[in-house]
Amino acid sequence: MNVRPHQEIEITLRSMGERARAASRVLAHASPAQKNRALHAAAAAIRASEAEILAANARDMAAAGAAGLSAAMLDRLQLDPGRVQAMAAGIEVIAALPDPVGAVLAEWTRPNGLRIQRVRVPLGVIGIIYESRPNVTADAGALCLKSGNAVILRGGSESLASSRAILASLARGLTEAGLPADCIQMVPTADRAAVGVMLAGMREFIDVIVPRGGKSLVARVQQEARVPVIGHLEGNCHVFVQRDADLDMARRIVLNAKLRRTGICGAAETLLVDRAGAPRLLAPLVQSLLEAGCEVRGDPATQAADARVKPATEQDWYTEYLDAIIAVKVVEGVDGAVAHIERYGSHHTEAIVTADPAVAERFLSAVDSAIVLHNASTQFADGGEFGMGAEIGISTDKFHARGPVGVEQLCSYQYRVHGAGQVR
Amino acid sequence: MNVRPHQEIEITLRSMGERARAASRVLAHASPAQKNRALHAAAAAIRASEAEILAANARDMAAAGAAGLSAAMLDRLQLDPGRVQAMAAGIEVIAALPDPVGAVLAEWTRPNGLRIQRVRVPLGVIGIIYESRPNVTADAGALCLKSGNAVILRGGSESLASSRAILASLARGLTEAGLPADCIQMVPTADRAAVGVMLAGMREFIDVIVPRGGKSLVARVQQEARVPVIGHLEGNCHVFVQRDADLDMARRIVLNAKLRRTGICGAAETLLVDRAGAPRLLAPLVQSLLEAGCEVRGDPATQAADARVKPATEQDWYTEYLDAIIAVKVVEGVDGAVAHIERYGSHHTEAIVTADPAVAERFLSAVDSAIVLHNASTQFADGGEFGMGAEIGISTDKFHARGPVGVEQLCSYQYRVHGAGQVR
Repeated sequence: MNVRPHQEIEITLRSMGERARAASRVLAHASPAQKNRALHAAAAAIRASEAEILAANARDMAAAGAAGLSAAMLDRLQLDPGRVQAMAAGIEVIAALPDPVGAVLAEWTRPNGLRIQRVRVPLGVIGIIYESRPNVTADAGALCLKSGNAVILRGGSESLASSRAILASLARGLTEAGLPADCIQMVPTADRAAVGVMLAGMREFIDVIVPRGGKSLVARVQQEARVPVIGHLEGNCHVFVQRDADLDMARRIVLNAKLRRTGICGAAETLLVDRAGAPRLLAPLVQSLLEAGCEVRGDPATQAADARVKPATEQDWYTEYLDAIIAVKVVEGVDGAVAHIERYGSHHTEAIVTADPAVAERFLSAVDSAIVLHNASTQFADGGEFGMGAEIGISTDKFHARGPVGVEQLCSYQYRVHGAGQVR
Repeated sequence: MNVRPHQEIEITLRSMGERARAASRVLAHASPAQKNRALHAAAAAIRASEAEILAANARDMAAAGAAGLSAAMLDRLQLDPGRVQAMAAGIEVIAALPDPVGAVLAEWTRPNGLRIQRVRVPLGVIGIIYESRPNVTADAGALCLKSGNAVILRGGSESLASSRAILASLARGLTEAGLPADCIQMVPTADRAAVGVMLAGMREFIDVIVPRGGKSLVARVQQEARVPVIGHLEGNCHVFVQRDADLDMARRIVLNAKLRRTGICGAAETLLVDRAGAPRLLAPLVQSLLEAGCEVRGDPATQAADARVKPATEQDWYTEYLDAIIAVKVVEGVDGAVAHIERYGSHHTEAIVTADPAVAERFLSAVDSAIVLHNASTQFADGGEFGMGAEIGISTDKFHARGPVGVEQLCSYQYRVHGAGQVR
């Protein structure tokens, strides 16, 4: 019998899905110790396989170079001994987290004597679709394992050999701990049709999809998915410097929020300055940014404050630069800042700098973003900085998980009711 | 300019969506007192408008009768003075619930002094698609209002006049409390194309869809929706009587779980009896069910226990009867029960009857359902019985909300971070 290639992918993936579902039932009841044994053994296997992993990565790099990938993409793809060690260490950090599964989130007793517990349980099977970074294979595999979920990974085609070598270490960890290797599986083909099957053709096998990558990947996932998605769109983050802000604090926060690392989703992209404080605040802030090597694109008021400011277009207010560029605008107080953020923002992370706590409260409660900060840098938007441990991303969705998505957010819950023969 | 009818519906609905989004921003920051004022005024308006509501309902009933609707559907559609009073009282019960918005769900301080709060916030705009019961208009409208969400209601075409009359009272309540009437809107057309637009064409205006109705409605929503769905599929609920069960308790629980009300999703549909306890338990349980007027369809072992048992087919194990019919099967211990439930169940609610707490724990943690009970009737699967107040349904999804969906489950959360100038 002849099968069309697409059909073949569907058969392969559905068989993976069945095995993932079966593995998830075992993993959901694995003890914390057994899961941690698997994680430590996987980390050890990665260290022991450094040579194989680097050799596989060299093959990926050669193919990517020949295919003309950009320098930025090649950098994301490349592994070196330090990155391999960091992957292993990252798995050990995940092993050290408190086990999320089985925690009693709430417990109460009803007047009829029924004792009700809300207990955290894994989601089941998670599908993760990502791009070229091979370390996601290790991170995502370990986070899913720790949270009791089976996972089907679909990495970028450029990193297929590297990811396979990493997967072999994860599988060794699972096997050494007596857990099914099917807990962590990887789509074996670079064919993009596989993504379509994961999104729309595996409802009974995949409980949730997590896309990790650029805008076009996330947009495709949100368009095609027939299962729930934990998406993270871009981080068009804002810092609003209110008229009562301390200038030194504002400068420290703005420079850090924009420039500490420009490529992360919590980096600030737009600075809003309160008109009532602009005479005191605007020029020094702009000057500090320019002197730190940041390009500044401003509205007319900002251009008037410093001749080096370039004019901002409407498009700038929407843009996540992920680079040493910032858009600057003068707004009318908290209400003006909130209105600007509502119109142009991406509901990720926004900060206010002000000495007035009442104004800060108004801003924090009015801004509809996953994370809102008072007198702190937007670069704190990170699961580790929140004390939640490693994360799979920062969700800008409101449904299920919002903000950092760590092991707890990869879980659901179940009600367990204890009675003594009660009927209604 | 000519517009196609479908396009006209889209224009109408998108305009409703824009207004709902704007209203949701006001409602999200309304005080608990203001929301409760609106709810109490709406309840009073419903009581004062009883005559108008019943007249509108009489028009719906006449049209439905002429259209040949089934007696069951006519019963769901019909209002009487008692049902109108109950609607008003239901709104007052919702007003009396604790306000879910603004609650600090968790709070911690990081070593760098950042104080992080996880605060409950509304989801935004909720779309509710339901069938013939006009009281859903009042219930769903009130639950969304209490939880700070704007709502777009799309009821069954049969109940359009009744729902409109109820909506007028809700709008009066909103207006009297100084809240936008757009907080609760109703799709003004019976055209089914409107459902398609709500599901797939309003991503920027609707944050989540809640279907309330039969299998085909829920299936359509899950297939077409491009926004998150809080779905509740059927409740194919099981009672497992383990070999160490007390017979009297088992009988009480089985009869109640099956027969107290057969039409609710928490009604038991299949009885599983442990083979090791069958000689003592099976015949008396079957006999009690039969004597209570319940039809029993059994596997061969059950048929052998009582001549009045009809043979069960494979299809019976999948069936949510919602009627005085039960399927009965003998299984091999807890593992056999869990395997049966995993294969045929709908992940809604399952109970075990046993005197052995260790066996009960095994069952509760192994069964992947929203609600699992030990020595209690499955008919407790109800937000009110859980002490959570009124609910919009019982979710069989694992994502976001599982089990009873009350005002807290209609919310998301936001991280509010309080600093003193911290940078990374």
